[in-house]
Amino acid sequence: MQRLNDVHQLQASAGLLGWDQQVLMPAANAHARGAQLAVLSRLAHEILTSDETARLFEDAERELNDADYDSKEASMIRVAKKDYDKAVRLPSEFVAELARQTAVSHEVWAQARANNDFRAFQPTLERMVELKQQQAGYLGYSQHPYDALLGQYERDMTAAQVKAIFDEHKPPLVSLIAAVKERSDRVSDAVLHQPYDIDRQRQFALDVVAGYGFDFTRGRQDVAVHPFCSGFSRSDVRITTRFYEDFLNPSLFGMMHEAGHGMYEQGVSTEIDGTLLGSGTSLSVHESQSRMWENIVGRSRGFWNWAFPQLKALFPEQLANSDVERFYRAVNIVKPSFIRVEADEATYNLHIMLRFELEMDMVAGKVKVADLPEEWNDRFEAYLGIEPPSDALGVLQDVHWSSGLMGYFPTYALGNLLAAQYYRKAIEERPNIPDDIASGRFDTLLTWLNEKIHVHGRKFTTDELTRRITGEGIQSRYYMEYLEKKYGEIYGL
Amino acid sequence: MQRLNDVHQLQASAGLLGWDQQVLMPAANAHARGAQLAVLSRLAHEILTSDETARLFEDAERELNDADYDSKEASMIRVAKKDYDKAVRLPSEFVAELARQTAVSHEVWAQARANNDFRAFQPTLERMVELKQQQAGYLGYSQHPYDALLGQYERDMTAAQVKAIFDEHKPPLVSLIAAVKERSDRVSDAVLHQPYDIDRQRQFALDVVAGYGFDFTRGRQDVAVHPFCSGFSRSDVRITTRFYEDFLNPSLFGMMHEAGHGMYEQGVSTEIDGTLLGSGTSLSVHESQSRMWENIVGRSRGFWNWAFPQLKALFPEQLANSDVERFYRAVNIVKPSFIRVEADEATYNLHIMLRFELEMDMVAGKVKVADLPEEWNDRFEAYLGIEPPSDALGVLQDVHWSSGLMGYFPTYALGNLLAAQYYRKAIEERPNIPDDIASGRFDTLLTWLNEKIHVHGRKFTTDELTRRITGEGIQSRYYMEYLEKKYGEIYGL
Repeated sequence: MQRLNDVHQLQASAGLLGWDQQVLMPAANAHARGAQLAVLSRLAHEILTSDETARLFEDAERELNDADYDSKEASMIRVAKKDYDKAVRLPSEFVAELARQTAVSHEVWAQARANNDFRAFQPTLERMVELKQQQAGYLGYSQHPYDALLGQYERDMTAAQVKAIFDEHKPPLVSLIAAVKERSDRVSDAVLHQPYDIDRQRQFALDVVAGYGFDFTRGRQDVAVHPFCSGFSRSDVRITTRFYEDFLNPSLFGMMHEAGHGMYEQGVSTEIDGTLLGSGTSLSVHESQSRMWENIVGRSRGFWNWAFPQLKALFPEQLANSDVERFYRAVNIVKPSFIRVEADEATYNLHIMLRFELEMDMVAGKVKVADLPEEWNDRFEAYLGIEPPSDALGVLQDVHWSSGLMGYFPTYALGNLLAAQYYRKAIEERPNIPDDIASGRFDTLLTWLNEKIHVHGRKFTTDELTRRITGEGIQSRYYMEYLEKKYGEIYGL
Repeated sequence: MQRLNDVHQLQASAGLLGWDQQVLMPAANAHARGAQLAVLSRLAHEILTSDETARLFEDAERELNDADYDSKEASMIRVAKKDYDKAVRLPSEFVAELARQTAVSHEVWAQARANNDFRAFQPTLERMVELKQQQAGYLGYSQHPYDALLGQYERDMTAAQVKAIFDEHKPPLVSLIAAVKERSDRVSDAVLHQPYDIDRQRQFALDVVAGYGFDFTRGRQDVAVHPFCSGFSRSDVRITTRFYEDFLNPSLFGMMHEAGHGMYEQGVSTEIDGTLLGSGTSLSVHESQSRMWENIVGRSRGFWNWAFPQLKALFPEQLANSDVERFYRAVNIVKPSFIRVEADEATYNLHIMLRFELEMDMVAGKVKVADLPEEWNDRFEAYLGIEPPSDALGVLQDVHWSSGLMGYFPTYALGNLLAAQYYRKAIEERPNIPDDIASGRFDTLLTWLNEKIHVHGRKFTTDELTRRITGEGIQSRYYMEYLEKKYGEIYGL
């Protein structure tokens, strides 16, 4: 336990150094910060993968043979052993080479995107795909090399499982978007694109997420170019936000989103706080929390019945010609667009499926990096009905591949599905939730999420947790039902 | 070198966690942060004191036998070996007990001070003195146990050396203060105690220290209750400030002071940046830099000839009835007072001598903790001519003893002496410095400090460095000459 504590505290400290780098640190210090982070990471890796740790794992597994699966001790060893198994399989020269290549690759990608020049990025990306194939080989898999990469973010989940979910999800989603497109004139979001004073944006968004239940005595909010949430313990959870002077969404829905992540971290049981179990269980479950508070709650009619008068009091001029209904429609506009991070709830998952398919094929060697722009654009048009006018707005848009994050994208879409699946169960068990939201009471929902999800931290896998809560694995149909009902009504389908 | 790098980067990371705790962290997270810091400190200690490190030291010392004393390699091993020798002598159970006692002691002291109840603190302080005596025993000393404690902050300096300096310094200082006291009606500082808008205070102070040469592209300024400076590399140096709505000094002179520390850290040679040599050499030399920029520069007539018109432009109402001369006198008022941190340049060192003498006697067992308040008050009256009306304003005022920081106080007074000694040499070598300051040019002085002091980092001891620069060890007479000249003129002595 002490060794695992050392690993965890080194990682938590590295987390804070990373937060500081994005939020406060003088840019000139990047090199020195890199040296600090390298030492923390290496020591954490050395302690986790040492022979002594291996021996202690063996002892612990023997001792805990009859321990309750849910207990802190059994969960700790079970989860840590999986971290260990992954870490120990990667040779340290490979880890160093991957880190080096990632640093280089990121710079090359940023330049290539700025110049809209995919060919400048191509050799670097080819090398990264090779490294990812090697990594999959080291980590091991039974069916597809992508399983190994996905497994870094979703313990025990396979590419085949994700593919089955997406294969069921895609056809109705494509149909829905096509149907909405026919009636796009029914909704305008012009009201959101006006000058909005940033101090007031901040105040409103802070009030909303404090109302949601984000605890500012155990967290903070700061400004960052790329918003994110970091937790270093349940009493130190930090969200970041970016503000636009003439667009309300990034601060408002961005703050809701990050607060959703944050409330998960703040809700971990005190019993496992400060241990490697004291965080969200997986990226997809984490994303289910952020998307639920951003979209299912924050873009609901009930929420805006309560919130719109307050927003209007802050921005009387901007909202003079709007009302709850028009504002509700504005924040729920569906509009196929090129950039994933700006996508609405309906089109978002198609952006992900496209990436998932291309990642699978690249790792399997079925799609060559050289052919990627064409593959991207063809599929984009097939799914979303529009073709990217440039690679900068297409295949070059995301940071992930240059950072070696392959296998990561699916978790975003799974998060959307899980948000709907969990929320459906929540209102089944607490039917008052929608009415409570409409009167600005969010604790009914938060308490349920706390009890069912947050307290467990990393104890269970996504599948274990989802089956415990809903009685079945991840489903796409609840999200489709949610989308069809909402947009059916807004767009009169 | 890699092992020493690990130690250094762990310490730098711990430094950032400490900075964050004082500046940003939610207060509720103190316990979790303590756990993170404990792991970083323990790992740094384990790596430094391991048998493998000892073996590598032996090899390195053999290899570097003929290396230039000033070289990076020789200095690194020489300085690190002293850190090692100290660290290895303290049994880890003792370190843990001291840490535990310090945490408890701090709480007890804070309560006792709030309640003006020395007897509540007495048993805790008695235990702390015992621990400090033990620590001195572990660390070893040739003459006085205080040598070992002082040596933690000033490599190779002895209590006898400090005592000799203070014994020479005290009589003329006591005389000067008595003489000033007779003429206290000649100076008023009322102009400083008025409402000053905090945003404008911040802007003025930031402009001043940016003008001094504090590089904000390699540093930051934030707000903290107890101001301090932390450096984690030469490109990440952070100062903190506290602001009062109705008193100009804390922000203005506080910012100058911390920037003085900060410019030292920013001026370390790139060759030794990011290593354990990449920081100030000792507390007294560090303090010489902060006190020089705060007092010798920031409280000089030349500086205010340049700065006063700018300050007046920002605060025309507050300064309507003042002029440069009256303002210069106001910021140089001498007024014996009870609280060290509020003391002026003349009385400050007497506050320190009092503490130094009591610490020496406590550690030697000559003064009992039970008799401390009486001893304090008697000496205070003898040196400063006033008697503290309460222990809260007397023996209980400082945090240091409760935090186990015995042997630390003298470095403050030595910093004052060194500031005058170095400055005298600077103007001997660069006679233009005073005129440059009076026209707002500070780079002549800063460049000299950079070349003579900053670049060397921790390579040399205080004595080595001071002899290299000035040809002699620490002297009190240059500081006395500086005080007598300045106050002789202001008070017409």
